Amino acid sequence: MNYPNNIKKEYNKRVTYGNRGMDLENLINMANETYIDNNIAIIYKKPTPIGIVKVDYSKSKITEAYYKSPSTLDYNGVYKGYYIEFDAKSTTKPFLPLSNIAAHQLKHIERVLNHGGIIFLLIMIYDECYILSGKNVLDFIASNKRKSIPYEYIKDKGIKVPYSYLKGVEYIKGLDTLIKEN
Amino acid sequence: MNYPNNIKKEYNKRVTYGNRGMDLENLINMANETYIDNNIAIIYKKPTPIGIVKVDYSKSKITEAYYKSPSTLDYNGVYKGYYIEFDAKSTTKPFLPLSNIAAHQLKHIERVLNHGGIIFLLIMIYDECYILSGKNVLDFIASNKRKSIPYEYIKDKGIKVPYSYLKGVEYIKGLDTLIKEN
Repeated sequence: MNYPNNIKKEYNKRVTYGNRGMDLENLINMANETYIDNNIAIIYKKPTPIGIVKVDYSKSKITEAYYKSPSTLDYNGVYKGYYIEFDAKSTTKPFLPLSNIAAHQLKHIERVLNHGGIIFLLIMIYDECYILSGKNVLDFIASNKRKSIPYEYIKDKGIKVPYSYLKGVEYIKGLDTLIKEN
Repeated sequence: MNYPNNIKKEYNKRVTYGNRGMDLENLINMANETYIDNNIAIIYKKPTPIGIVKVDYSKSKITEAYYKSPSTLDYNGVYKGYYIEFDAKSTTKPFLPLSNIAAHQLKHIERVLNHGGIIFLLIMIYDECYILSGKNVLDFIASNKRKSIPYEYIKDKGIKVPYSYLKGVEYIKGLDTLIKEN
């Protein structure tokens, strides 16, 4: 099977716009660009938080830094006035390991839900892409001792969204359903 | 007069929690922490975007990088289900130079307004703090040839919000008014 993660390796070798590859982050970036250009939604990936250790001010250059772990999810923005936030998760296994979601991210999901925000995971599994609402993620964890969310749960509770090489992952198509459920 | 920008220099010398100083970013961070802790709003500063040039993978350390200019505003999140986004601007002059706002940020303000988001500048001027709505910023630019927004316009159109050494800048107090106007 052609899992997106495997294709990513290919992508690094031939970096041209037309061959940006099918890994989940690229599929989302493609969709986000289209949504902004066509005035459908304004959603951006947040920059990766970086801790700065040393700066060479004479050259305006950072000479020592390290990656920090984010306390929120990776993407956020606005759609039809609603606050939207999500994280991309892809797995080559028949389940999504919960170790992929940090404890402070779960706390953040809970808080955003309490404030009426639309928050979810966008999960690529078995070559299919699903929106799994933050509520469904928290419900699963509250009612299970399993360390991973199985494919069946994602398929059953999630909202399947289409993706393609040309349009990216069209997650907006699932958002109206999600907003109604919220 | 004691402008926040002058106090910032002092701050760097004595970095303890109790003396985080009165510069605008600290005043906002204080407020944001309070809002999250008290379940009032979930608003974060976005990480500064950084372009990575070289990484020493053996030490998981970034060894060359540079600051990139953000295409959105610095803070965003959710309040009562509304999408909130803003940028902090402080000036020691009797006006806010428009050079403080990048062209792509103005475009972004326009887009977010079109999508029903609540977007504004939080301006510290003459020791006073104002919310100036994105709409008022764009209106000013559309109807003026001036290269700065004068204090009088900010005072007249803006929503004044209190700030204090202990609570930070309580901008949420102006948000309900802003939401009603939107």
